[in-house]
Amino acid sequence: MTTNASQIDTKAVNVIKGLIMDTVRASNSGHPGGAMSSADFAYVLFKEFLNFDPKDAKWFNRDRFVLSAGHESALLYAILTLQGSLSVDDLKAFRQFGSKTPGHPEHDMTDGVEATTGPLGQGFAMAGGMAVAEAFLRDYLDAQSAGHFTYALVSDGDVQEPICLGSAALFGHWGLGRLIAYYDSNKIQLAGPTCRADKIDHKALFESMHWQVIEIDGHDHEQIRKAILEGQAETAKPTLILGHTTMAKGCATLEGSESTHGSPLPEAEITATKAKLGLPDESFYLPEDVLSHFRARFASLGAARNDWDKLITARLSDADFAARWENATTPVCQRSLNWPEFESGSSVATRKAFGACLGAMMEQLPTLMGGSADLDPSNQTVKFREFAGIFNAASNAKGRNLCFGVREFPMGAILNGMSLHGGIVPFGATFLVFSDYERNAIRMSALQHLPVLHVFTHDSFFVGEDGPTHQPIEHVSSLRLIPNLLVLRPADARESAACMAVALKQKSRPSVLIFTRQGLPVLDLPNPLEEHVSKGAYVVRDPEDAAPQMLILASGSEVHLALEAAEACPELKIRVVSVPSMELFDEQSAQYRESVMPRSITRRVAIEAGRSDLWYKYVGLDGKVWGINHFGASAPAGVLKEKYGFTTANLIKFIKE
Amino acid sequence: MTTNASQIDTKAVNVIKGLIMDTVRASNSGHPGGAMSSADFAYVLFKEFLNFDPKDAKWFNRDRFVLSAGHESALLYAILTLQGSLSVDDLKAFRQFGSKTPGHPEHDMTDGVEATTGPLGQGFAMAGGMAVAEAFLRDYLDAQSAGHFTYALVSDGDVQEPICLGSAALFGHWGLGRLIAYYDSNKIQLAGPTCRADKIDHKALFESMHWQVIEIDGHDHEQIRKAILEGQAETAKPTLILGHTTMAKGCATLEGSESTHGSPLPEAEITATKAKLGLPDESFYLPEDVLSHFRARFASLGAARNDWDKLITARLSDADFAARWENATTPVCQRSLNWPEFESGSSVATRKAFGACLGAMMEQLPTLMGGSADLDPSNQTVKFREFAGIFNAASNAKGRNLCFGVREFPMGAILNGMSLHGGIVPFGATFLVFSDYERNAIRMSALQHLPVLHVFTHDSFFVGEDGPTHQPIEHVSSLRLIPNLLVLRPADARESAACMAVALKQKSRPSVLIFTRQGLPVLDLPNPLEEHVSKGAYVVRDPEDAAPQMLILASGSEVHLALEAAEACPELKIRVVSVPSMELFDEQSAQYRESVMPRSITRRVAIEAGRSDLWYKYVGLDGKVWGINHFGASAPAGVLKEKYGFTTANLIKFIKE
Repeated sequence: MTTNASQIDTKAVNVIKGLIMDTVRASNSGHPGGAMSSADFAYVLFKEFLNFDPKDAKWFNRDRFVLSAGHESALLYAILTLQGSLSVDDLKAFRQFGSKTPGHPEHDMTDGVEATTGPLGQGFAMAGGMAVAEAFLRDYLDAQSAGHFTYALVSDGDVQEPICLGSAALFGHWGLGRLIAYYDSNKIQLAGPTCRADKIDHKALFESMHWQVIEIDGHDHEQIRKAILEGQAETAKPTLILGHTTMAKGCATLEGSESTHGSPLPEAEITATKAKLGLPDESFYLPEDVLSHFRARFASLGAARNDWDKLITARLSDADFAARWENATTPVCQRSLNWPEFESGSSVATRKAFGACLGAMMEQLPTLMGGSADLDPSNQTVKFREFAGIFNAASNAKGRNLCFGVREFPMGAILNGMSLHGGIVPFGATFLVFSDYERNAIRMSALQHLPVLHVFTHDSFFVGEDGPTHQPIEHVSSLRLIPNLLVLRPADARESAACMAVALKQKSRPSVLIFTRQGLPVLDLPNPLEEHVSKGAYVVRDPEDAAPQMLILASGSEVHLALEAAEACPELKIRVVSVPSMELFDEQSAQYRESVMPRSITRRVAIEAGRSDLWYKYVGLDGKVWGINHFGASAPAGVLKEKYGFTTANLIKFIKE
Repeated sequence: MTTNASQIDTKAVNVIKGLIMDTVRASNSGHPGGAMSSADFAYVLFKEFLNFDPKDAKWFNRDRFVLSAGHESALLYAILTLQGSLSVDDLKAFRQFGSKTPGHPEHDMTDGVEATTGPLGQGFAMAGGMAVAEAFLRDYLDAQSAGHFTYALVSDGDVQEPICLGSAALFGHWGLGRLIAYYDSNKIQLAGPTCRADKIDHKALFESMHWQVIEIDGHDHEQIRKAILEGQAETAKPTLILGHTTMAKGCATLEGSESTHGSPLPEAEITATKAKLGLPDESFYLPEDVLSHFRARFASLGAARNDWDKLITARLSDADFAARWENATTPVCQRSLNWPEFESGSSVATRKAFGACLGAMMEQLPTLMGGSADLDPSNQTVKFREFAGIFNAASNAKGRNLCFGVREFPMGAILNGMSLHGGIVPFGATFLVFSDYERNAIRMSALQHLPVLHVFTHDSFFVGEDGPTHQPIEHVSSLRLIPNLLVLRPADARESAACMAVALKQKSRPSVLIFTRQGLPVLDLPNPLEEHVSKGAYVVRDPEDAAPQMLILASGSEVHLALEAAEACPELKIRVVSVPSMELFDEQSAQYRESVMPRSITRRVAIEAGRSDLWYKYVGLDGKVWGINHFGASAPAGVLKEKYGFTTANLIKFIKE
């Protein structure tokens, strides 16, 4: 049972457990066991420590709390009910269509939910991303305007996920002293005790990664309080509070059982547990004394918020602060940005165009933060690193370059956390083939509507000598399948700048920006280019003095091949369409789509140095696609280009067939 | 410089460094720095410790060596040249099309290369997978027939990758005492010193995960020998030899520079380095004395192989051993297997059908090993776990169930390592949405031609209450884009068994098996069903007494909807085609494909509870696809089915339009 707690605190925790059991039972689906084992910590944190504005869940300077163990949503919803942002009716609608209480927390559906969680390990990584954003903004603005704690609640499953360990290594290295993670170590997971899969000394593990680790009895309120205070006091290292707990703590007969992990407790168990906990035998019991006790701090929290408002108003009279405030609070999509220009006819790898664009942005966007997964020179982020400085919360919080090491999945999730925090324009880069490593983080960008920039260079077999392990084949198309994600594969340097501009105009979706390793001719593309690119596909060449009789669709490094082939075959009356983004094109009006790809033109060819399958939606059963549907090989890119037929000569042969 | 080494050993290491520099220079592409820092360890290991048959690189009981740092391929190729499986001409063809010396090692192109590596962290995980296979087979056969060490060479980048840490946790837990990993800690990576991204006490880290850790000077041959011996002596824990080294060790002026990581050394540096190392100023210098010194052990290695052959011959006279030997050495694709039957008309979730199939296989396939990423009850692997026992090399090596914990990416790569080792039929299971977490391991199964079974249950929004984080939308189609991978999405329980049978018949490609959470009617599908399924798509229903005038294509849980709609609309003369595998269908003859989907039938509809895009290659511009191109929502599956229109009534409306 809860120990070292006042009678009313004990009652409050028991009421929360009652709500958890009833919530999961009502929907006949959910995860009560972990929610109950974590209840003591979550209660003490929300009741006594978490700074928030009871009337404004989106307050800029609130503490952040991330429930990395997203399956424990019933716990968070119960506490948010005590806090007032949810109601008992919301709890009754747990896991029902359109409710504020979905199965796993979704940040844009529920006030007080800071991140969408469930895929394990990523919540922990996102919390660290929030702490990065906070550390930077605390330095960029000041500690009163932007300085708060970030808390995460993680489970055994979270800590097993490799992304958690990779992220923890970074957070220790970065000295995220305001990050406090509570590890609810109940030692039971879905399929049984964790000892089936673990023999880890977690204290030693996290200490080896430069964390402060505090081991406590996770049901002892005094130990919880003391640990949180110690976590707040340690400013150079993140803190892991390692709470030893009991699965389904408080249950009448099922304490410690994995059967409580992912299923409602049986009715009889709920009844017996309520009796054991001293709760009345009624559903969704939420007594007034518990509510008013929980909310005792609200007046002072509201006053603190008011003080902060006054502080900001005062600060804003300082022009320098006001400018920085503007930078930290104006969405990037509302800014007007200047992009570099590129000379037609020169040869520029689009990754170098990206580097030039990044160079142009680093002064224009003072809250642009990001970096590479140890591929800085290849990804063309070195200039940014040198200009912006390397971030470290303890020693250089103004540094805007994040050195992720070879840790793609942590990178992706950390960017999501930074974006969720707000005030930051986050980007991260690696080779396209390693988008695989962070694929679910990209999905979580999309699901959470976060305008993160995921930058990938080395976009096809044109990678060359590094061979098939490093040559993307399926990646461009497979990323296109993730909903609410823009995939932008520019044809040349100028289209690269336009794609960057389009990506930064997105309010509620991430962009994947795909750049070549090899040089590409800078083309004479039609203006206004950004407007064309924003439509996803547009005509870049039509036959002179004749209606087009054939379409060649292409993206990225294949657009110039299409143009060359069209020039070489005037008799075929070819229209060439550049398709930097299928998603943008598919959302245009039927009229626009028809104007670019008229149904009357049935002779259609598509060319892309990647899987061909997706292009059939534009060329149909009668069309043809020149793609590559097998793995590449280690050889110079020029050799592969010939072997795989990505030459003008071969394309001409192909379209003439 | 190399220390505590004889003159000839020093010379040999320097010759290897010369070959590395020349190899990378010849192709004007590659990674000399790490290769040179790791040369001392690799040389001592291959020269003095690694057991192999100089005449048979595929000897069943050889020690395994995995170069996890695949970019250090020039080192491995140089040593394999000393060993005789490569020639200097092969080195000169480094990174050229069709050579035996591709940019990163590819196990099926080069004798002596045990795994395809390059994507960091996975080589380490695959090495552990090999050690799992070895531990099991050592128990299943005996230590003389099947007992060897597995070595891995890992780099700073490997150890940064989260998959490395997640795998290390498992290997420590599993007590893989015959796994010896050498960590070449040269503290420099592609973009600069590792201290930009790390502040880890690696000794404490690995010890916290139950490893023996031995710190040495990685250039000191005596320390290397002693550490390998201590690693061999410790049988209950894997060993990490933490070798502190200098990047590009031996270079004239560039020791410690990240510029040596990913580019050839300048000509002048090579010349100066050769002079410093006492090598003549010639390319690809490989003197006879070094060769004969390196090969001094070959006679005894050959004799050991002969002794082993005799031992096996003798052992095979024992019928029990002979049967086990047969099980461990006959490819599963050559076996005849019996599958469970399912009653037409009943409702069976295909995941339960998978569970029944797994149950049928666990006795028929005594070397079937695998498990779930902590979703045993959901993935239906509990019965297998109970029957087969939980694997632990130290305490229960005969256990065939692997408890991975929530570690999907390690799982995928470990399965690859088990498959590479041979003798094992590996499978692993999780939810389909978490295929994202292990996506590159699935790709590496495919690239390496490994017949691994990747099992995914909970295959669409029909997952229901767990919500969009747990509901696959794009996954089935995005997996279909990985080359050389079979994606099998069966329509019912009987097709599930047929898909399992087809998957186990594959010699050189992995299969992704996709199963439903929800119950599906067992259909009256035509026989011989396995033959139909092996063709990827086949007719399951034609109109009576009339030629078909419309096609409905469907996979998985949508096939029964298609059948119901066809029955309800006899006037439309509908043919229904079940498409369990697009890949298998696409490789059939044009004649077969035409017989199933005749070009003359232009009215075509496809239905799948996932992204629609890929289906246009079968239905064309005039066809229609009922799919789902947005994220799902948390709600009971029955509610989502209505909301998203996956009902017979809606499908009828759709096809009538």
